[in-house]
Amino acid sequence: MRLDDTPSLYQQIAGKLAQLIHAGTLARGERLPSVRDLARQYGVAVSTVVQAYHWLEDAGLIAARPRSGFFVALRPVELPEPTFSRLQRKPREVSADWLGRRVLGRERPEGLLSFSSGTPGLDMLNPDRVRRALVRAVQRNRNLLCAYPDIRGEAEARRAIARYAVGMGCSLEADRILITGGCMDAIALCLRVVTQPGDVVAIESPTHFSFLELLQSLHLRALEIPMHPRHGLSLDALQLALDTQPVKAVLLVPTLSNPLGACMPQPERRRLVQMAAQHDIAVIEDAIYNDLVTLDDMRRTVKSYDTTGHVMLCHSFSKTLAPGLRLGWLEGGRWSDRLCAIKDTQSGGQSAVLELALADLITQAGQAAAMRQLRAQASARLEQARRIVDEHFPRGTRVSAPPGGLLLWMELPRGLDTVELHERCLAERMLIAPGTVFSSSGRFRNCLRLGMGNDWTPAHEVALQRMGGIATAMVRPKV
Amino acid sequence: MRLDDTPSLYQQIAGKLAQLIHAGTLARGERLPSVRDLARQYGVAVSTVVQAYHWLEDAGLIAARPRSGFFVALRPVELPEPTFSRLQRKPREVSADWLGRRVLGRERPEGLLSFSSGTPGLDMLNPDRVRRALVRAVQRNRNLLCAYPDIRGEAEARRAIARYAVGMGCSLEADRILITGGCMDAIALCLRVVTQPGDVVAIESPTHFSFLELLQSLHLRALEIPMHPRHGLSLDALQLALDTQPVKAVLLVPTLSNPLGACMPQPERRRLVQMAAQHDIAVIEDAIYNDLVTLDDMRRTVKSYDTTGHVMLCHSFSKTLAPGLRLGWLEGGRWSDRLCAIKDTQSGGQSAVLELALADLITQAGQAAAMRQLRAQASARLEQARRIVDEHFPRGTRVSAPPGGLLLWMELPRGLDTVELHERCLAERMLIAPGTVFSSSGRFRNCLRLGMGNDWTPAHEVALQRMGGIATAMVRPKV
Repeated sequence: MRLDDTPSLYQQIAGKLAQLIHAGTLARGERLPSVRDLARQYGVAVSTVVQAYHWLEDAGLIAARPRSGFFVALRPVELPEPTFSRLQRKPREVSADWLGRRVLGRERPEGLLSFSSGTPGLDMLNPDRVRRALVRAVQRNRNLLCAYPDIRGEAEARRAIARYAVGMGCSLEADRILITGGCMDAIALCLRVVTQPGDVVAIESPTHFSFLELLQSLHLRALEIPMHPRHGLSLDALQLALDTQPVKAVLLVPTLSNPLGACMPQPERRRLVQMAAQHDIAVIEDAIYNDLVTLDDMRRTVKSYDTTGHVMLCHSFSKTLAPGLRLGWLEGGRWSDRLCAIKDTQSGGQSAVLELALADLITQAGQAAAMRQLRAQASARLEQARRIVDEHFPRGTRVSAPPGGLLLWMELPRGLDTVELHERCLAERMLIAPGTVFSSSGRFRNCLRLGMGNDWTPAHEVALQRMGGIATAMVRPKV
Repeated sequence: MRLDDTPSLYQQIAGKLAQLIHAGTLARGERLPSVRDLARQYGVAVSTVVQAYHWLEDAGLIAARPRSGFFVALRPVELPEPTFSRLQRKPREVSADWLGRRVLGRERPEGLLSFSSGTPGLDMLNPDRVRRALVRAVQRNRNLLCAYPDIRGEAEARRAIARYAVGMGCSLEADRILITGGCMDAIALCLRVVTQPGDVVAIESPTHFSFLELLQSLHLRALEIPMHPRHGLSLDALQLALDTQPVKAVLLVPTLSNPLGACMPQPERRRLVQMAAQHDIAVIEDAIYNDLVTLDDMRRTVKSYDTTGHVMLCHSFSKTLAPGLRLGWLEGGRWSDRLCAIKDTQSGGQSAVLELALADLITQAGQAAAMRQLRAQASARLEQARRIVDEHFPRGTRVSAPPGGLLLWMELPRGLDTVELHERCLAERMLIAPGTVFSSSGRFRNCLRLGMGNDWTPAHEVALQRMGGIATAMVRPKV
């Protein structure tokens, strides 16, 4: 059994077929090549293709018909994609009256139906498995709770993480890994080390609102770089920014960006690394969604191309395994020692028993299978949400088609104010994230992010339909 | 059984007698008042005095002689106390070439006998009790590891902490407590909220080197305020500083300051609170050693006098219960909401199962007794170390007589360079902390801190005697 999560042959084949289905190249109802034909075509064993087909079947993408073979099960929802965002000319501080702060910070009634989370709920995770791992770690290490831990994290846990990172294309030394209190904790550490207050950080646009809050709290200025809806950060725009602005770091989510769900193509990842080395800036890579992407080749990190130590890789298992362990990790490249020193000074190490539980979990034989199942479940739920959007939201709505994860980005018809939609939804006890919270410069006023995380219920489906009705009613009749 | 740790009657009586013994008022070999006499004198039950005497006996301060009563067991080591430190005129940045950084940051050989820790080792803590509490917490809360926690900490844990804080004289609302990743994490959060880079923070002199590292990493300037060896921070000097310098916050350890072991008298705590309110500055109170002090009335915090919300109380159980839980907490007064927001943004919550284990531990019936035993053990070890210092260190050595904890502060004869002593000790595989690491302005060159934490062995006793020999050899013969 493989310990790391390198895509095996059947996963690679399944990934390619999934791409063809999502792209509409293989249309709904179309018959897939026979198992034997495909095996010949790829030069693999028949059993490998069978495995791939079963994976696609689990994901709800294809269905078997007795004695006829496999057929594409889903009509791909053919909603148009969101548009390319514009370049921001000047960096700006995330201002205190940033609209996002008001939207995110307000008190909310109890019992909301939330569409605000991209984290799998209990129905998609395995609490028993996590619990058993922690109890084992506690019982096997009698004295660990009564001593200060290694500031970098338990060596055994760092070795397990280094092995895991092979599946992200990385060859990391365990001694240079630093375990943190989650992925955001890791990113905050990186920013503290490579910037001073007032410095400029290039970010994706739209970007995760937590990044904007983080930049604000560290007194950093944000420079929003346009995003291609499918391929992510525009490197041409970034190049222009690096040539004209004193950028100190680029903070991005190359795989399944939040909120867009874009994935940067591998050749561009390589180019990004070269740009960082040339301009001597840090790339802070948030790889938290890498385990959720259904395109296996998108699991390879920007970090994997790094030869000069300019890439700081941040990751955690909070979105796939156990949000409540509160553990993340980073490999900080050339800033490795300073990261460790600043963590030592400002917060200290994490609890060693939690780290050992994590090490146990990610090296278990069942881990790769658990991830595959999680990806299939998430994909099915995403597709379900896209279907409801297609049927119930106003004409002209554009929506992202991310290859995995639990987030959708929607662009509603121009003029439809999603802050107002957010208010109207709140009044009916539904919570969404309006587009303005994903920009510090007032963009995306007609956009919103839908999160299908937490526990998804039939009530959520109904609520989403209702939300579409509210939005449709808001579209002004043409004058 | 009492849930909090308010000193009971017998503890108060034992504390008073301990003070008299340490001060030499009750001399070695002297007979203590009879149980009946003392009960009459204090107006308490005979059984209460018996309990007090047994406590002192456990602490090694008195001994029973059959049919004769109780006698003072220890000759108090009559070493002179350290001198009063001087006022620093101007705040200064903790510079990059701060001597402490070089001393603390260097690589050390394996297998050192360390005198650098003030944290009790496994021989003084109870790993089994902690382990059982964590396993219970994990088993009882099936899903907690698979959900993001409450950013403030589990409500049950915050309630337990609020009850515990009654023993520190505090009446805190559980809803305003914020659980952190240790005490230093709490202090760093407080500093981030009340200061900007470049601001001035008043600190004790000598102060804990970790505070200097923290100020440096947050780009803050330190203003060193003189310390009375027994009563701590000089409020007159602080007043002068507040009148002449733009101080934003005072960071101090009012009970068992590190490294001096000083305790600020209660009337001065009240005055400090008034000064903070008047100048509208924050007092960041590190109460991590409050559970270790043998003088029960010194367990009352500065925070307990706070009516305006200017005091930020930071505490953890890392020095008394379980360093490896990596939990601390704070009550941030008027900055409560901002502290919570910044923690949410920059790091996220702690692991809920650890918090519930902590709640279980500090509300267990045995907790108060465990603390008493820990204090008695620590006191005995301190006294043992003072005795060796008395017998083996050069004439003219001054040493602190802290009422509890595991740290001693020594002032060696003027001209004796403890950085050199530190080097010579390292060469013989002993680790001490030279005085210069406790100041950012090159002070305390002839001082050192001895920590009797971690696991204390007979080898440590021998090493300490040897250290005295090395120091004695370094004293230059008078010309």
